[in-house]
Amino acid sequence: MRIAFVAFDRMNMLDFFGAYDALMRLKTLGFVETLTCNTCALKEEVRDIHGLSLKADTVQSSLDGYDIVVVPGGVGSRTLMHDEIFLAWIKSARFAPLKAGVCTGALLLGAAGFLKEKRATTHSNALELLAPYCAEVVRDERVVDAGEIVTSQGVSASIDLGLHLCERLCGAGAQVAKGMDYPFFGAGL
Amino acid sequence: MRIAFVAFDRMNMLDFFGAYDALMRLKTLGFVETLTCNTCALKEEVRDIHGLSLKADTVQSSLDGYDIVVVPGGVGSRTLMHDEIFLAWIKSARFAPLKAGVCTGALLLGAAGFLKEKRATTHSNALELLAPYCAEVVRDERVVDAGEIVTSQGVSASIDLGLHLCERLCGAGAQVAKGMDYPFFGAGL
Repeated sequence: MRIAFVAFDRMNMLDFFGAYDALMRLKTLGFVETLTCNTCALKEEVRDIHGLSLKADTVQSSLDGYDIVVVPGGVGSRTLMHDEIFLAWIKSARFAPLKAGVCTGALLLGAAGFLKEKRATTHSNALELLAPYCAEVVRDERVVDAGEIVTSQGVSASIDLGLHLCERLCGAGAQVAKGMDYPFFGAGL
Repeated sequence: MRIAFVAFDRMNMLDFFGAYDALMRLKTLGFVETLTCNTCALKEEVRDIHGLSLKADTVQSSLDGYDIVVVPGGVGSRTLMHDEIFLAWIKSARFAPLKAGVCTGALLLGAAGFLKEKRATTHSNALELLAPYCAEVVRDERVVDAGEIVTSQGVSASIDLGLHLCERLCGAGAQVAKGMDYPFFGAGL
């Protein structure tokens, strides 16, 4: 299993690391033996709005060939959703069988055209921005599974999205949640 | 308000970023105008167990002078709790009025001597390791506030610890939780 975690300037770090923590436990708990991940960006180092710096290990490479592509949100998504170069890169994930958008990462998946005829959700403050890109904006589900595309509510819901994918892929949601000391798996879904 | 977020090799990134996300919203939501944070480590770059890399902005500097020092956990804590150089560095936080341990970060605060005569908690798998360092190991509270020291359960409880501090410092827990789309603030505490 190959997972790409997309990173960009002014992304929200918790959007990234909630899903990352859950999914990487599929490896440490032995559910998936050969799981590799990449932190993928268009530059070598990305910073959040407070200046905190994360290094990418895969720079300006296509997102093709991954089994899962996870796209976080954050303030940066509001400009990148109109950035043709960035969107062309996101579109390179088109053949990935599973694409996940955390928080306003859904806006990026939407602007890339992946949400047409799909139900989807995003951060509670961004539901109206998402509407033009998808068939139905979902307001009251923590994680929305539309098959090839899974989206979640904002920030903290990154954990729930990660656990949902652990459950869907390996039936491992409850066990991973236990490892994360998370008592709310399945709550509010 | 000056906050130090401690970082080290083989730390758990979600331990770090759950509390970070909540606390930094005290700035973006306007509760604390002059909030600065540093990512503090003994080396310029730290990596988690999967190789993901985070850059420190404050390297080999004393933890003195901060209002809050947040110590995450992770696999690396199991060796660092016996590392005299690392512990001497953690002890430099002794005058910080508020020290917070997420997950097995509590073991590091304990090994530094900060938990004597205190109630504390940690990841559910590490409660017995914590016992020698504190007056009472708490098993069933998400966040344990012992005044100068606040500890939380594992990984995902990083969010709850951050929100608890937002509430304690500024009465901002509910508003910050809303910004994080987190419906579980106060649940399981």
